[in-house]
Amino acid sequence: MKLSPLGDRVVLKQLEAEETTKSGIVLPGNAQEKPQQAEVIAVGPGGNVDGKEVVMQVAVGDKVIYSKYAGTEVKLEDTEYIVVRQSDILAKVEA
Amino acid sequence: MKLSPLGDRVVLKQLEAEETTKSGIVLPGNAQEKPQQAEVIAVGPGGNVDGKEVVMQVAVGDKVIYSKYAGTEVKLEDTEYIVVRQSDILAKVEA
Amino acid sequence: MKLSPLGDRVVLKQLEAEETTKSGIVLPGNAQEKPQQAEVIAVGPGGNVDGKEVVMQVAVGDKVIYSKYAGTEVKLEDTEYIVVRQSDILAKVEA
Amino acid sequence: MKLSPLGDRVVLKQLEAEETTKSGIVLPGNAQEKPQQAEVIAVGPGGNVDGKEVVMQVAVGDKVIYSKYAGTEVKLEDTEYIVVRQSDILAKVEA
Amino acid sequence: MKLSPLGDRVVLKQLEAEETTKSGIVLPGNAQEKPQQAEVIAVGPGGNVDGKEVVMQVAVGDKVIYSKYAGTEVKLEDTEYIVVRQSDILAKVEA
Amino acid sequence: MKLSPLGDRVVLKQLEAEETTKSGIVLPGNAQEKPQQAEVIAVGPGGNVDGKEVVMQVAVGDKVIYSKYAGTEVKLEDTEYIVVRQSDILAKVEA
Amino acid sequence: MKLSPLGDRVVLKQLEAEETTKSGIVLPGNAQEKPQQAEVIAVGPGGNVDGKEVVMQVAVGDKVIYSKYAGTEVKLEDTEYIVVRQSDILAKVEA
Repeated sequence: MKLSPLGDRVVLKQLEAEETTKSGIVLPGNAQEKPQQAEVIAVGPGGNVDGKEVVMQVAVGDKVIYSKYAGTEVKLEDTEYIVVRQSDILAKVEA
Repeated sequence: MKLSPLGDRVVLKQLEAEETTKSGIVLPGNAQEKPQQAEVIAVGPGGNVDGKEVVMQVAVGDKVIYSKYAGTEVKLEDTEYIVVRQSDILAKVEA
Repeated sequence: MKLSPLGDRVVLKQLEAEETTKSGIVLPGNAQEKPQQAEVIAVGPGGNVDGKEVVMQVAVGDKVIYSKYAGTEVKLEDTEYIVVRQSDILAKVEA
Repeated sequence: MKLSPLGDRVVLKQLEAEETTKSGIVLPGNAQEKPQQAEVIAVGPGGNVDGKEVVMQVAVGDKVIYSKYAGTEVKLEDTEYIVVRQSDILAKVEA
Repeated sequence: MKLSPLGDRVVLKQLEAEETTKSGIVLPGNAQEKPQQAEVIAVGPGGNVDGKEVVMQVAVGDKVIYSKYAGTEVKLEDTEYIVVRQSDILAKVEA
Repeated sequence: MKLSPLGDRVVLKQLEAEETTKSGIVLPGNAQEKPQQAEVIAVGPGGNVDGKEVVMQVAVGDKVIYSKYAGTEVKLEDTEYIVVRQSDILAKVEA
Repeated sequence: MKLSPLGDRVVLKQLEAEETTKSGIVLPGNAQEKPQQAEVIAVGPGGNVDGKEVVMQVAVGDKVIYSKYAGTEVKLEDTEYIVVRQSDILAKVEA
């Protein structure tokens, strides 16, 4: 089962932020501030969206930073995704 | 009796989320968080909508995820439907 | 006396929802949830509306579902009408 | 002294709703719900309004229904007028 | 010192509404409801305003009715002016 | 160090409103109502701003009246400036 | 690891405002009003953004003033950045 986004929508999956505190304890993601980094899981076709021509600029596998408060959370087969418009993606994170 | 949507409207019918808890009890849909998956029942013709050309990208029978809070609930012959604009549909769910 | 709507306006008349409860008592429309089905009474000419070209897609006599909270109630010779924009009509109801 | 509206503005004058109650008492307009029927007193030239071409579709003397809450009340030589945009006029009332 | 408005702005000066009550007492403007009539003092050049072509339709000396709540009050050399956009002017008042 | 505004932005510096009360006491600007007159310090290049072509109509040294509540206060080397869009400038004040 | 902004986004890094009070105590940035000066760290490609053609007018290394309340704070490898749209940049600060 997979999500195939429409228009300029992009399906994201949040990156786990496993961090070690100074005392060496590993905090799971939930105990921290929600990270804004995510991986691109699926990309809509772009094209005419609300009467404007949109060219998609992200690709599956990209690491991205997206706008806090943007997007809709979706759960599919026990995995949580965020569906955002491409314009809610601020930047790619490159190695 | 059937609904024939105008413009870029799409008629959806929510998919029942019958789930079995770990103890084996089946919870009916009402006792859970409202699922966002729906099946496409009818699709408007698209074309010029609010001065913008809209091409319909979903078809009857598609399973879709739609935006929480979007759409209007409509009851016809004891069946509940949701009428949304195509732009409120986030993604198709494909097998 | 009749209403002749301007632009993309449509004059609707709510359909009475006379229903029989299980005990056989007929509840008049007022005692129930306001139905959203209506009949089209008059249709504006469409054309240039707010700088956008609108083609009317409903006709007098059509049964339609319209958006809750949309439109203006108007009383003319003791009959109540609702005047909506065509974009507030979600779907036609066909037999 | 007369009002000459600009752009797509229309000057209206509310029609008095003198009605006879069942007991035969005539209630002046003030004691009732504000009627929405009005007569067109003056019509702007239309043309380019906010970058959109507007063609005026009402004429002096037309009886019209206008949107509740729309328009600005103006008093000139003890007569009250309402100045609305043409798009706030819902329909003409024809005999 | 004079105000030279930009774009589609118009400089107005409120007309004093000196009125005589029935008992013959003259109430100065302040003691009454603020009148909406004003005289046009200066008119901007119009032209391209926010990407739209605006043609000015009022001239210095015109008496106009303007929208309540519109405009910015400006005091220059002890005289109070109101600077409005032309679209906030509802109508000219002609003799 | 100087501010070089982008797009249709204009850098303003408020004009001090030193006034003598009737008793001869000079009130510094802070003790009075904030004046809306300012001098133009720097002017952006205009051109394509949010997809609209903007031609700059003010020049360095102009005295202008600007919209209350508009603009962003900026402090640079102990001098306070206001950065506004040209459309927030209501009028030039000419001698 | 670096941020590569999309569309008309610009990655900024706030300039530290280390200041010496009159008594000679150096206040770290946190104890003061948040400065609005920032350095440009990365610049999006511009081009078609929401259907409008955007030409980027800032370059990496520019010192800029940006709009209070604009932008999204992003933390990457313990450094804090602000991602803004170019239209939220008011002016360049030039030496």
